[in-house]
Amino acid sequence: MKALVYHGPGQKSLDERPKPEIQAPGDAIVRILKTTICGTDLHILRGDVETCAPGRILGHEGVGVIDAVGSGVTTLHVGDHVLISCISSCGKCEYCRRGMFSHCATGGWILGNSIDGTQAEFVRTPHAETSLYPLPDGADEEAMVMLSDILPTGFECGVLNGKVAPGSSVAIVGAGPIGLAALLTAQLYSPAQIIMIDLDNARLEIARQFGATDTINSADGDAAGRVMELTAGRGVDTAIEAVGVAATFLLCQDIVGAGGVVANIGVHGQVVELHLERLWSKNIAITTRLVDTVSTPMLLKTVQSKKIDPLRLITHRFPLDRILEAYDAFEHAADTGALKVIIEA
Amino acid sequence: MKALVYHGPGQKSLDERPKPEIQAPGDAIVRILKTTICGTDLHILRGDVETCAPGRILGHEGVGVIDAVGSGVTTLHVGDHVLISCISSCGKCEYCRRGMFSHCATGGWILGNSIDGTQAEFVRTPHAETSLYPLPDGADEEAMVMLSDILPTGFECGVLNGKVAPGSSVAIVGAGPIGLAALLTAQLYSPAQIIMIDLDNARLEIARQFGATDTINSADGDAAGRVMELTAGRGVDTAIEAVGVAATFLLCQDIVGAGGVVANIGVHGQVVELHLERLWSKNIAITTRLVDTVSTPMLLKTVQSKKIDPLRLITHRFPLDRILEAYDAFEHAADTGALKVIIEA
Amino acid sequence: MKALVYHGPGQKSLDERPKPEIQAPGDAIVRILKTTICGTDLHILRGDVETCAPGRILGHEGVGVIDAVGSGVTTLHVGDHVLISCISSCGKCEYCRRGMFSHCATGGWILGNSIDGTQAEFVRTPHAETSLYPLPDGADEEAMVMLSDILPTGFECGVLNGKVAPGSSVAIVGAGPIGLAALLTAQLYSPAQIIMIDLDNARLEIARQFGATDTINSADGDAAGRVMELTAGRGVDTAIEAVGVAATFLLCQDIVGAGGVVANIGVHGQVVELHLERLWSKNIAITTRLVDTVSTPMLLKTVQSKKIDPLRLITHRFPLDRILEAYDAFEHAADTGALKVIIEA
Amino acid sequence: MKALVYHGPGQKSLDERPKPEIQAPGDAIVRILKTTICGTDLHILRGDVETCAPGRILGHEGVGVIDAVGSGVTTLHVGDHVLISCISSCGKCEYCRRGMFSHCATGGWILGNSIDGTQAEFVRTPHAETSLYPLPDGADEEAMVMLSDILPTGFECGVLNGKVAPGSSVAIVGAGPIGLAALLTAQLYSPAQIIMIDLDNARLEIARQFGATDTINSADGDAAGRVMELTAGRGVDTAIEAVGVAATFLLCQDIVGAGGVVANIGVHGQVVELHLERLWSKNIAITTRLVDTVSTPMLLKTVQSKKIDPLRLITHRFPLDRILEAYDAFEHAADTGALKVIIEA
Repeated sequence: MKALVYHGPGQKSLDERPKPEIQAPGDAIVRILKTTICGTDLHILRGDVETCAPGRILGHEGVGVIDAVGSGVTTLHVGDHVLISCISSCGKCEYCRRGMFSHCATGGWILGNSIDGTQAEFVRTPHAETSLYPLPDGADEEAMVMLSDILPTGFECGVLNGKVAPGSSVAIVGAGPIGLAALLTAQLYSPAQIIMIDLDNARLEIARQFGATDTINSADGDAAGRVMELTAGRGVDTAIEAVGVAATFLLCQDIVGAGGVVANIGVHGQVVELHLERLWSKNIAITTRLVDTVSTPMLLKTVQSKKIDPLRLITHRFPLDRILEAYDAFEHAADTGALKVIIEA
Repeated sequence: MKALVYHGPGQKSLDERPKPEIQAPGDAIVRILKTTICGTDLHILRGDVETCAPGRILGHEGVGVIDAVGSGVTTLHVGDHVLISCISSCGKCEYCRRGMFSHCATGGWILGNSIDGTQAEFVRTPHAETSLYPLPDGADEEAMVMLSDILPTGFECGVLNGKVAPGSSVAIVGAGPIGLAALLTAQLYSPAQIIMIDLDNARLEIARQFGATDTINSADGDAAGRVMELTAGRGVDTAIEAVGVAATFLLCQDIVGAGGVVANIGVHGQVVELHLERLWSKNIAITTRLVDTVSTPMLLKTVQSKKIDPLRLITHRFPLDRILEAYDAFEHAADTGALKVIIEA
Repeated sequence: MKALVYHGPGQKSLDERPKPEIQAPGDAIVRILKTTICGTDLHILRGDVETCAPGRILGHEGVGVIDAVGSGVTTLHVGDHVLISCISSCGKCEYCRRGMFSHCATGGWILGNSIDGTQAEFVRTPHAETSLYPLPDGADEEAMVMLSDILPTGFECGVLNGKVAPGSSVAIVGAGPIGLAALLTAQLYSPAQIIMIDLDNARLEIARQFGATDTINSADGDAAGRVMELTAGRGVDTAIEAVGVAATFLLCQDIVGAGGVVANIGVHGQVVELHLERLWSKNIAITTRLVDTVSTPMLLKTVQSKKIDPLRLITHRFPLDRILEAYDAFEHAADTGALKVIIEA
Repeated sequence: MKALVYHGPGQKSLDERPKPEIQAPGDAIVRILKTTICGTDLHILRGDVETCAPGRILGHEGVGVIDAVGSGVTTLHVGDHVLISCISSCGKCEYCRRGMFSHCATGGWILGNSIDGTQAEFVRTPHAETSLYPLPDGADEEAMVMLSDILPTGFECGVLNGKVAPGSSVAIVGAGPIGLAALLTAQLYSPAQIIMIDLDNARLEIARQFGATDTINSADGDAAGRVMELTAGRGVDTAIEAVGVAATFLLCQDIVGAGGVVANIGVHGQVVELHLERLWSKNIAITTRLVDTVSTPMLLKTVQSKKIDPLRLITHRFPLDRILEAYDAFEHAADTGALKVIIEA
């Protein structure tokens, strides 16, 4: 089968690989219909993710059709259309029982990382019964691909951790795909203000179309001052960090109001400064989270009932044959305007 | 009247001052029966607290008898025995309505800071009806003094923010009075493990008597390793920072388990390092809080029903005349073994 | 001044009454601009409310201008435009401190009940600083009148108690003004399904316009069966009782799913049957509540940010002179189509 | 093997039955070491439980040793000592994913009900990996048997649903084994008052030894009055119904305070009266629950850390050979003083 393979920092190719086989009673083999590329795939290609070894098929998102199941699988059947969660969850370990699937003792984020992933014609998914979700009748496959990772990530790490609530004020730092996913899902809770902050005016314009009440281009260095003006000097109830660098995390510390939350989504590679000398008395929380995908069933319902429209995140489509072009478009988003690209296998 | 007055960094004296008078309809004048000294008073004396100007009477804790009330006060009366909260709360502003009394628009921590405090024969308390608590019949006055600040601080900033729960694991870094207050109040939720960490073996011995299940002297630099051993490699559910320096905050980052909370109580004077490059995916929260004293009525019930015994925190007693000696004992706790000192006015 | 006075069961008239005066330091006198009639006023007129004696000026909703304040009032001033909460809250008692303003020791629902109310040119409001809310600049006065009672009631008793959540299923039994208020405010949480149940097709048509996803006319006695069909046999997550009779409360028991909530809003006059022999093992909650109006500041923000439009509830307008006609229109809603009627003083 | 078999209302015997065998990949066969009798077993014997057909081996509690596992079981092994939960949970269905194991699509309370149970030498347990809990080293087997059902039931249905909290007031109606289990586990949250109500002075004496702060013999019909005296007229924060008849449920309605919870544990066979005409405005919740056993891992930790001592519930011990005598002692508890009886297989 064809598969996009990581060959070490900066190197990838579309290779021919053997079709995966069932290895454990809980496995399923899924024939991929549609997949996509995540910012994390770019991190891997920069050599930032130690757990991902050369030779690995990338990709942790997608929808497909079940091609085979292990002997222990009783609730899924060959031919079922399923959504593949980016997080594999055994459903049995202490962390899974607590709803922290991201820290599953034998799962977590393994697809396209420590085991082969979804940017291929087929993928083996461990713990299939608790990591795949049957598609409801009439579901839009491309919309469903957005439920593998980006929507639950924006929602769980940003919106839920950030305690977004009716009437509250939210600032989202970073208007890339993940920041926009937080923007879309934040509106499930009807906050009064959603302030979007980025350096790219084109993305800020998209943010306005997606429902941001205010946008700030932070290029001039006074984003914090602008947020204070917009919140009558109080700061926001929720500051969502959707970039992953020290400067944006500092900005979040500057704009969070007393009693508020800084909800980190960004993947950070460096130690950052925390101004506890100002924040110790401010009654705030700073939260981190690798998405657990516990909200996937709920998000599926909100998509099916048209409360959010994930298709707005999709800008480009490519067949699997041309996945290298897809990577190219996704990596050069400033030029191509790419948000999420769909790969059809 | 006699009062302990701050005269600038390093300078204090017991002075004669005029008795305070009612200034606003919501004020009360309280004749002090018993007060105490807080670590924050030492911060002021080191010049660390900008809001506290020379000439200020110190102290924000105590019990007393109401001597006079303003025209707007209808629910308190001259002669009532009351507990003075360290936090003044108007009960009307947005923050008070949200239960965040610490950020009250016209209150918060003002006693012995931006207005004169309780280390005197009398004190004026603004917003009296929502900042004083009538003592129940038969209440022990010295126990009640512990409810002004130290017990609600340990409980709200450490235990509540830290989400201590039945069966959970807790580490408290710092076995001073505030860490011990967290230790006492954590037991209201029956955690399975409370690991106390300090450099002073005498305080660790007290911690064991107060209910710590394990103690670690961190002098050898391997406290984190020991905590990991005690928690089967998982780290603790709750790490309470009760010191206020960078090193202890770093230790908390090292010992908090996936899904856990670092609950900061310490008053920090410096920016600290936050290892987001390790923590971004660990599903943790870091919380800060200036005590709101919203839990005072509840803590009063737990003291009256003997669920916690605050008298265990009291090691020394002095008359107001000898308050300078009391400061001396409190400042040299390593030698004197002082935890909380009672001043009788 | 002119005032609508209750003279015993079935009797009311527009009388001339003396203008109210300040009685306590916390009082304000408010000149009424706009008020409305509540279903509870009709209960009083039927003689169902024992606490309301003949001679009482009715009304517990409205907006107005402050005409005078007591000596203890420091945060409100003559000339301020304010929203009058139906619940008076002292802000000091144990219940107010817990956010249960409805059970305030010296307040609660007293306006137009145990003290004179708002269907008059002026009203005296006790505990003014914690029971009146300044109108934001540019606020629509008629929209604000809906925040006195009906929107917080639908929201707190129905939506909050009912734990309405993104993707969840909700049934509202009763499409009168209060059921419609629950319908409007439920959408702040983006449930996937809102099923409206009533006997009146005209009201069900309005419910569809207001956002109901499904409507059921319960005249044929099979409403429960229809709800089960719409929820794949599971029943709803939230069943909101917005009528106040035994039959509708029974219907809620029949349609609530395992793990769900029956949130009662209705004012009940009779004991009802509870089928514990079926429900004991169903993991449900049944909740009751007199509105606390703790959500008023939040709802104000959602109205100002256009997340809900309370004007949709207003069908008729009358000057105070013609308030008897307004009562007539409101009482005969089946004929007049009245939802909420605005009275301009 | 020997097994206690239900043969229709009023009929049971100790029979010889074939040893159970693995039927599904997720099954385990457990050799029983210790089991016990539950009040629900008596309900079955009275013919009250329709799902339990004649010929069924009774029992849904116990500890044992794994004798065999199905092909899909990877985390449990022959020889493991395990606690058997009274609730079987697949870990995959919507309800299990929500933590509502009691409503598992293919599990729930099935042991000793719709499939053969634990009062035998061996038992087949479906969904073994998510329904059995390995015993920690050094665990007391008899204490562990109390974790199969009675402790999680008292805790989840009574204490958690009842929102017992530090400083709160609790009344438990019914001092039988399940009421006493609620009493033991309520203390994990340090309430200020636990009032135990029963008709049997011997059980009330035991309740005092177990930590009740007050006891009331309700024989004189004035239990409600006594509770009001003990709570300064306010009623309790939590009223736990641990009997299952209309009269005790009515008593709970009489004694619950404004803002409180009536947490039902009792198994009810009849419709009951609910006084909504008094309760509609009282801001209360009434909760029901079939135990989910989600708290089993946590309770295990509190037992191992000596926060609760389940052995206090055990009054009698019998070998499996004499299980009919054990039933006799348990059924005639008023004479024998039996709380929980241990059966050794």
